[in-house]
Amino acid sequence: MDREPLSVLCTPAMVVDVDKVKKNAQRMIEKCEKLGVKLRPHMKTHKTIECADIMTGGSRRCIVVSTLAEACFFADHGFDDILYAYSLPFDKVERCAILSERLELFQVLLDHPDALEQLKKRPLKGGRLWHVWLKLDCGNGRAGILHSEPEALRLAQSIAEAAGVQLTGVYAHCGNTYNCRGVQEIQTVAKDTTRFTLQFMEKLKIAGITCKSSIGSTPSCSHPGQDMAQLSEVHPGNYVFYDVQQSIIGSCSVEDIAVRVLTRVIGHCPHRNQLLIDCGWTGLSDTLMKAEVVAKTCQFGWCWETSNRICCNRRASGPQTVVHDSGAWKSGAPFRKAGLQHVPTGFSAHTDSIPFMCNSSDASCVSCALRGHSHGQVETNTWMVNRCKYRILAIVNLYSNLLADTCR
Amino acid sequence: MDREPLSVLCTPAMVVDVDKVKKNAQRMIEKCEKLGVKLRPHMKTHKTIECADIMTGGSRRCIVVSTLAEACFFADHGFDDILYAYSLPFDKVERCAILSERLELFQVLLDHPDALEQLKKRPLKGGRLWHVWLKLDCGNGRAGILHSEPEALRLAQSIAEAAGVQLTGVYAHCGNTYNCRGVQEIQTVAKDTTRFTLQFMEKLKIAGITCKSSIGSTPSCSHPGQDMAQLSEVHPGNYVFYDVQQSIIGSCSVEDIAVRVLTRVIGHCPHRNQLLIDCGWTGLSDTLMKAEVVAKTCQFGWCWETSNRICCNRRASGPQTVVHDSGAWKSGAPFRKAGLQHVPTGFSAHTDSIPFMCNSSDASCVSCALRGHSHGQVETNTWMVNRCKYRILAIVNLYSNLLADTCR
Repeated sequence: MDREPLSVLCTPAMVVDVDKVKKNAQRMIEKCEKLGVKLRPHMKTHKTIECADIMTGGSRRCIVVSTLAEACFFADHGFDDILYAYSLPFDKVERCAILSERLELFQVLLDHPDALEQLKKRPLKGGRLWHVWLKLDCGNGRAGILHSEPEALRLAQSIAEAAGVQLTGVYAHCGNTYNCRGVQEIQTVAKDTTRFTLQFMEKLKIAGITCKSSIGSTPSCSHPGQDMAQLSEVHPGNYVFYDVQQSIIGSCSVEDIAVRVLTRVIGHCPHRNQLLIDCGWTGLSDTLMKAEVVAKTCQFGWCWETSNRICCNRRASGPQTVVHDSGAWKSGAPFRKAGLQHVPTGFSAHTDSIPFMCNSSDASCVSCALRGHSHGQVETNTWMVNRCKYRILAIVNLYSNLLADTCR
Repeated sequence: MDREPLSVLCTPAMVVDVDKVKKNAQRMIEKCEKLGVKLRPHMKTHKTIECADIMTGGSRRCIVVSTLAEACFFADHGFDDILYAYSLPFDKVERCAILSERLELFQVLLDHPDALEQLKKRPLKGGRLWHVWLKLDCGNGRAGILHSEPEALRLAQSIAEAAGVQLTGVYAHCGNTYNCRGVQEIQTVAKDTTRFTLQFMEKLKIAGITCKSSIGSTPSCSHPGQDMAQLSEVHPGNYVFYDVQQSIIGSCSVEDIAVRVLTRVIGHCPHRNQLLIDCGWTGLSDTLMKAEVVAKTCQFGWCWETSNRICCNRRASGPQTVVHDSGAWKSGAPFRKAGLQHVPTGFSAHTDSIPFMCNSSDASCVSCALRGHSHGQVETNTWMVNRCKYRILAIVNLYSNLLADTCR
């Protein structure tokens, strides 16, 4: 991770402030230590060895992933104690079996009796057990068996009683914290999820079953309540970077955000008062397609000053020629002169009133930045999944003369 | 491209009907021959050697790309006469120069005098010329210099007069045809774009400049007017696959669509009347996040019967175990019994009233299907770029028993 000036980077690129990543990771480690729960960081946000090392404190143990490709990727790099937290897809049972036979501890997740049947049909070699987490829906409303349904307890019992299978834990994702605004709302959802999970654990105990419990989501784990101390584990992931969405939810401050999208202005249309940037909608957010609206309503689309502390993830396609950087953007002057908003303190320029125009033909290159950096083994990058999020760093080193002209 | 039953595929996957691809490609070749214009097919939709061969009739000549990564990918596979139709990004000038020096004919595009200055600063070796297309905005409102502005003619003249640079052509993209509904609206936009382009060519002629002219977009080239015969080239791309959006615009019929997204149902929530499928929002469309609405308003989210003619692009991650296929979905019965819409003729099941639930954690895997197939060299797949498009093929071979239960 060589440090280079941003201006030499090929755009669009995802830039990661590694100091902030370390700070975010360390803060979560300390929160969990204080609470006495095990931290099982989720890898889906970054899918890189580098961040995984930072999040696990170098142990390369106790992680959670959302795809089998991620599981294989991290297993190939010496990681173990991996939980594949995705409703068991029946077409991937064989690959899960192979990982279970290969790793010290590979764990799957399910929420339906049919899935358990699939595991029973494929007993593991060498007397190994399938390590199974039961996915509980505690109000999130996506995957999982509803915590209050009698079927949930029955399924847990079936798992516990099945030959060749072990009920390792009960897993709930409080993704509904993403609808929250502010710490109080987040903690209310987290409390409910924790209570429902612990109530279910109580039912299990009465039925003579003991296993682990885990809840997670970055908002809830960023502001853990004391009740969460009764859980075995938590599994947040996004906190490693945070993003604008998280700052709006209240998970973090804007200063905690460790990632930015670097994009160049590649066109200027004075007659439309528009800039064209070399970053497509997946790199920014589909909402940014209507940036005029979004920037005003939820503050996406900021432009930030460059920082020496920013460590760059490069596109796989190699180094580029250096471009001229006039610094005009940094002062914000051209845009101000052009009748656009004043630059607030701490920001180099503010795009609230700049109607961004995203050229979709280079879309998703942002994801390639980190993929290239990370050996190209992982198929999905969450930049595309977590929409409406990343702050944009636009460097107007291309059309600075033009902009100056416009302002005369 | 081995033919296998769809049920052995790991999902989500993009499936391509190669027969339809060939038919779509052949039809466009014939349209252009009849019109007497050169067809320069755009590669950005598929980014594969396979489709590029089909679209160029095996010549591997005369193509257009939207990223430099695509340009390099196709150059590495023996393609030539490549137009990089993206407003010249200044950080990529050196790489463009290298391609220009290496290929017989590599062409760039620009819409600003600053970009021309960048080219002049990097003269090509061996006395070669930069082949430059001027990007004209004929009403599309994205990249390009406005056709009616005096600056447009001045820029064309500057290119034509610059040492080491050749004005190869004038290029306009009528992306505004994507707002059309029906052939008449499409042809009106195409006519305007053609007229503006030809008017500009006339001005050039008066100024003593001759060069090529090209307009494009799949809607316009699918229904070319006779006036387009006066152009040198056209550059459509999406027609190789078409999609639901194109069928709604009127570019094609639903039967022409050559791609589908294959996804499995991995969860069922009777209390919410929801299914969980293993395909994230980028694989489907971000609009499908609200599929209940979308399916009703613009017909996305159909489920189709499997077909023996479908040739499969596999995910890079290798073959999967075979899953049980009960055929229940094909009959459409379970959903009908469950109170959902009747299956219209020709469709195996219709999801208008099925509230799809997309699990975002496997998002963008769809793009990996074709990427894996195509040697992993190309960084962007347009599945993610062209939103709101692909038809979904859901095979409910996992939870068929469960669904039957629900219907009792």
